[in-house]
Amino acid sequence: MKSVKAEIIAVGTELLLGQITNTNARYLSQQLSYLGIDVYYQTVVGDNLNRLKQAIELASSRADVILFSGGIGPTQDDLTKDALGEVLGRSQHIYPEAMKKVESFFEGRDKPMTENNRRQAIILEGSEPLDNEVGLAVGIAVSQDDKHYIVLPGPPKELQPMFENQAKPWLAKNVLSDEQPIYSKMLKFAGIGESALEDGLLDLISAQTDPTIAPYAKEGEVTIRLTTKADSEKEANVKLKNMEAEIRKRLPDHMYADQDITIEEQILLMMTGMGLSLAAAESCTGGLIMENLTRIPGSALVFMGGVVSYSNEMKEKLLNVPHDLLEGENAPGAVSEEVAEVMAAEARKLLDTDFAVSVTGVAGPGSSERKPVGLVYIGLAERNQPTQVFKLNLKGNREAIRIRSAKSIMYRLWLRLKELQQEQIVQNQNESK
Amino acid sequence: MKSVKAEIIAVGTELLLGQITNTNARYLSQQLSYLGIDVYYQTVVGDNLNRLKQAIELASSRADVILFSGGIGPTQDDLTKDALGEVLGRSQHIYPEAMKKVESFFEGRDKPMTENNRRQAIILEGSEPLDNEVGLAVGIAVSQDDKHYIVLPGPPKELQPMFENQAKPWLAKNVLSDEQPIYSKMLKFAGIGESALEDGLLDLISAQTDPTIAPYAKEGEVTIRLTTKADSEKEANVKLKNMEAEIRKRLPDHMYADQDITIEEQILLMMTGMGLSLAAAESCTGGLIMENLTRIPGSALVFMGGVVSYSNEMKEKLLNVPHDLLEGENAPGAVSEEVAEVMAAEARKLLDTDFAVSVTGVAGPGSSERKPVGLVYIGLAERNQPTQVFKLNLKGNREAIRIRSAKSIMYRLWLRLKELQQEQIVQNQNESK
Repeated sequence: MKSVKAEIIAVGTELLLGQITNTNARYLSQQLSYLGIDVYYQTVVGDNLNRLKQAIELASSRADVILFSGGIGPTQDDLTKDALGEVLGRSQHIYPEAMKKVESFFEGRDKPMTENNRRQAIILEGSEPLDNEVGLAVGIAVSQDDKHYIVLPGPPKELQPMFENQAKPWLAKNVLSDEQPIYSKMLKFAGIGESALEDGLLDLISAQTDPTIAPYAKEGEVTIRLTTKADSEKEANVKLKNMEAEIRKRLPDHMYADQDITIEEQILLMMTGMGLSLAAAESCTGGLIMENLTRIPGSALVFMGGVVSYSNEMKEKLLNVPHDLLEGENAPGAVSEEVAEVMAAEARKLLDTDFAVSVTGVAGPGSSERKPVGLVYIGLAERNQPTQVFKLNLKGNREAIRIRSAKSIMYRLWLRLKELQQEQIVQNQNESK
Repeated sequence: MKSVKAEIIAVGTELLLGQITNTNARYLSQQLSYLGIDVYYQTVVGDNLNRLKQAIELASSRADVILFSGGIGPTQDDLTKDALGEVLGRSQHIYPEAMKKVESFFEGRDKPMTENNRRQAIILEGSEPLDNEVGLAVGIAVSQDDKHYIVLPGPPKELQPMFENQAKPWLAKNVLSDEQPIYSKMLKFAGIGESALEDGLLDLISAQTDPTIAPYAKEGEVTIRLTTKADSEKEANVKLKNMEAEIRKRLPDHMYADQDITIEEQILLMMTGMGLSLAAAESCTGGLIMENLTRIPGSALVFMGGVVSYSNEMKEKLLNVPHDLLEGENAPGAVSEEVAEVMAAEARKLLDTDFAVSVTGVAGPGSSERKPVGLVYIGLAERNQPTQVFKLNLKGNREAIRIRSAKSIMYRLWLRLKELQQEQIVQNQNESK
């Protein structure tokens, strides 16, 4: 199987001025790698007809598939279709369906449609229009001399659905038709670093097994992508499921999901299913745990609320932490096992929830209570159970310590929920005997 | 003055696989634009010697300054210095100071230094070493045939200080020495959208005055960068200060800072100076306001803590919101002026602070209490003053509504603090009479 080479050309002077980050190049690279297409170059060029034409000619000389993002809006600066048309020697014409969309958009407005807006409905002679589900500018796919060109809009919220729903099927049909399709699956891990996870799977990763295993880490979570080629989805699923089972067997206490969701999303799913409720008491994380939970739609079914007790006084007032624990010569202090325990237990009582989590620690930059930056205690309170407290020694700056503290207590909560689920399963089995 | 053209080459297969976003290209583009250097192309190329050499040759044919990010680590995949050495015909040698740093790094470790690590100390014949303050790999600056090459490390936390402290002075001396230096200043705005701000300054922006004015928006805040060329810093400061004064005169109730800080940072600065304290009660923002405040080092001096009252029950229990306001046929409901008022006032009382802010609203995706998505009430309570409530009708998805709600109440708090500062000034003037 011959490898297919791709180049991504992002168009826009705002990229060259550093006003925006080229997230489209990353998105498209990732998507193409899932399809088994190798990206050899990413290029960024400004809104300049000559430089854009040169970039297209260069890309045509070294790639099989050329994807464009941006430069298809209504203004005179939007030149991608003009440049591609000139390089390929294809004339422009208006695609009626896209034009109707532009016109009906302006019918509902006070402002009249300016002539420029017709540009958004342009396609090239012999090209296939790619529908824009979110915006007005139509995309283009066209093949010439064994090279394939796909023109996509600049805004990520327009580009992503157009790639997923229009360009990907077009690529599958016109470029990848001889190839075996690629299937992949994401696994998510918590409570383990990227290198420890790699160590645990080293033989599998270095054997480049089928499916292949690609781990990566971001924002306190580790992800593995499994990828395989197969003739059918059924065959692929068997291979992916077998590898998933092997990995889960090795890391049963770390793999929390077989899809790309955060640990907070997984926890909300589990707790919703079990009818459990949650509260939080945060000190050094200052609202981060609650913000991670409440940004998820539907979190209100599980998460009842909580308290940020940033000062000692507030720990006493809002969470009934005894003064003797916080201040005095022999007091353990705010950053202590004892205070983490009271915070979790009192938050649970105050909000009358099934679970509550707490965090107290030194996020830095300065130390406090003569305790080192990175010392953090996390607490997990549960109705009718003793409260558990864990001590962390974290590295990194203020932001990293806050993120890792928040993820660590979520990991502990997930472990406990998993235990409860298993107890439930055993209980149901016993009952049905 | 001849314009200087630049090209940025980011090196790394992880970029082409879409595993990471090319934030270095944005950072360098922005920095170069501040220096008055025009970036014509950004290129990304993988860890492949031939393709990298081709990219260097192409860049040398179309740019005056070529900046590299990445590919200077210890592994055999790190090829940037090899490729540049081959293209320029310059041999490699070890830079002793960098080698000492690598060796002393490994002296403190259990693991022995592998031979590969010597690669991090390589510079090219006749090149200037650029010190790496954060990591081990030394950078390079070298000129040949009127072209200038700067090699920087891939990790942003290493690249940014090396650019700022090493590469920028080298560019100033070797590339920009004939040019007038560029000076710039950031102004920050709140409570106003980017287009309304542009409307207010349209004559200044379109006149391309000196200093030039460039507005841009992100994450609920608007920034303006003023840029000017001048022979001396003193001359530049006069020009920048005059333009700043003109803009402040037009938008006195929106310009909150003359440096690049968030409105939360500005509020903490003002409140620290005035010895004031702050609490929060959040419903639909679910901890976002507190997280924005507590991520700032030193926030504990001002911010005492607060409450996330996500459910109605919690609004009653934690914040004494009367049941009659929340439920019942004629109750205004949780998303109402009345509830926002009680939440702010009670949070202030509970935490005994000078100020408290509150938010209650419908962030979506679904509506609640048959109220529309985007309807939000924000409250501002102040010791010995009536509590103010403001109604917002926001557009956008859940995330956008949460961010804008949080920024809107911070804007209201800033306006009030500004008023207090002015009263204070008047009072001091009267006293000194």
